[in-house]
Amino acid sequence: MDLAQALLEGNRRALAQALTLVETGGPQARMLLAALFAHTGRAHIVGVTGAPGAGKSTLVAALAAHWRRTGRTVGIIAVDPTSPFTRGAILGDRIRMQALSGDSGVFIRSMASRGRLGGIARATGDAVAVLDAAGFDMVLVETVGAGQGEVEIAATAHTTIVIETPGAGDDIQAIKAGILEIADLLVVNKADRDGAEQTVRQLRAMLSLADLPADGWTPPVLTAVATRGEGIEAIAAATERHLAYLRESGRFAGREQERARRELRLILQETALARVHARVSSSDWDALIAQIVARTLDPYAAADQLLDRAWSNAGG
Amino acid sequence: MDLAQALLEGNRRALAQALTLVETGGPQARMLLAALFAHTGRAHIVGVTGAPGAGKSTLVAALAAHWRRTGRTVGIIAVDPTSPFTRGAILGDRIRMQALSGDSGVFIRSMASRGRLGGIARATGDAVAVLDAAGFDMVLVETVGAGQGEVEIAATAHTTIVIETPGAGDDIQAIKAGILEIADLLVVNKADRDGAEQTVRQLRAMLSLADLPADGWTPPVLTAVATRGEGIEAIAAATERHLAYLRESGRFAGREQERARRELRLILQETALARVHARVSSSDWDALIAQIVARTLDPYAAADQLLDRAWSNAGG
Repeated sequence: MDLAQALLEGNRRALAQALTLVETGGPQARMLLAALFAHTGRAHIVGVTGAPGAGKSTLVAALAAHWRRTGRTVGIIAVDPTSPFTRGAILGDRIRMQALSGDSGVFIRSMASRGRLGGIARATGDAVAVLDAAGFDMVLVETVGAGQGEVEIAATAHTTIVIETPGAGDDIQAIKAGILEIADLLVVNKADRDGAEQTVRQLRAMLSLADLPADGWTPPVLTAVATRGEGIEAIAAATERHLAYLRESGRFAGREQERARRELRLILQETALARVHARVSSSDWDALIAQIVARTLDPYAAADQLLDRAWSNAGG
Repeated sequence: MDLAQALLEGNRRALAQALTLVETGGPQARMLLAALFAHTGRAHIVGVTGAPGAGKSTLVAALAAHWRRTGRTVGIIAVDPTSPFTRGAILGDRIRMQALSGDSGVFIRSMASRGRLGGIARATGDAVAVLDAAGFDMVLVETVGAGQGEVEIAATAHTTIVIETPGAGDDIQAIKAGILEIADLLVVNKADRDGAEQTVRQLRAMLSLADLPADGWTPPVLTAVATRGEGIEAIAAATERHLAYLRESGRFAGREQERARRELRLILQETALARVHARVSSSDWDALIAQIVARTLDPYAAADQLLDRAWSNAGG
């Protein structure tokens, strides 16, 4: 496939096209991903998550600039609707990212996270694969962390960085209970604000209460002022240390298996839906929908009917 | 089925059991939902979403108390990891909810939103159906709004309330761009804080720029101080007005169709995955995962293989 070849040779226009293709999905996207897949598995995939306003994009930009200075190439995927990387963002925010523009060793792509139920997780995984195949050393994935999103990103990444801000009080406290499970690194950003030390202490206290294996990785709690670049080197170093830990401890293989298992499940579900759509006419779908709305058929029975029909039409 | 019968007769223990069952999923859950489905379609389903710390739970509690005073029963589902309704919450927050406890006309259920990729949307839809069948007049669904979650809730609800807070600045501005698409009501909570009027003005300005149909529903921008119960009556009234609008304009049927279509799609995908798991041995899955990790097989080809195998084993 020409597009795959061009992308593998470093053509940036081909890369942009490929990302659009996998975001849309469909047979062409599948062919492309099949062609690229053998070239994946080299990038260090880093997830960055946190509440809106925590400074994720600024931190991602600063980390990217740091890794560029050390000679590494960086691909960035923003699946965060509040990210300045994404469409509809404010010009003022974009300006902060200018340090990265005009550098062919950085590629930034925002994913539309709206209006496509379920598909975004699959599309993000595919976009990571494309950037990985294109040869980027680091692939950073920025998602807003406040629910399902952060779990998804933890399943996509080798290393997950969770960003907190000082003194956000009880509400943040409640989030943390969940976030601890997925964080490989905790960063208190905007650490020049009041309450930063207390937030660091709280996070460390929560970690000490958590049931972490004695021989495993203890997530470091770091501080940063991302707008001024403070703390970025330490975060980058800890991120690299985490990857080294995964490899040395033999846990890297386990993460790769989890990633593959999740990816396969998502793709299987999309493929099954696509097969049913291909094999059952839209008027048959509409008739079932009408019965569900009229409460004469429950959606579970309707799903069974659709699958049976697609299954029996499979041979014909 | 006994459980369904007990639930339909108003047994609260049966309701709690049913919700646990549908959250877990599986064949028994399917049978229960099939039995209950004919009894659904009566509740007004209201989604409440907003960023962490916006005061969603307090507003939900205040709305519930209001509707109880007007004689309506209220079911609440919290799929928000930051909600005080959910497990792991802080005692202090729970106390705010005490006004609702001990009233059999209110039922609160929190959903674990962690660790189950994709399944939460299906489980939430099923929990709504259970509360609907149990006869609750209003079903309130609280989700944290910062990405995919709010789109999901808009697809589940008849009326979606989006909560903002004053003066959250540029970051919130960026969220709004997306949130306007799903909001039927906009509420600026914590309206006693500085900047509330400006936030109201900004939201109205954004609405006036949005491409809303002239003959359609224009989302009202309301203010509230939920902790003191201020503004709650107006929000409840606007929520009821929105349902009346949907019915009178004939758009209610369209929303019901959209809800059914989405539900069917989610259930179809879960069912397909369950069928493949039932028909392909776990050692065959493991072998495919190993090939994916080794990059000798791409996950799209693996999904095709699994579906083909399940399809051909379907008759046997």
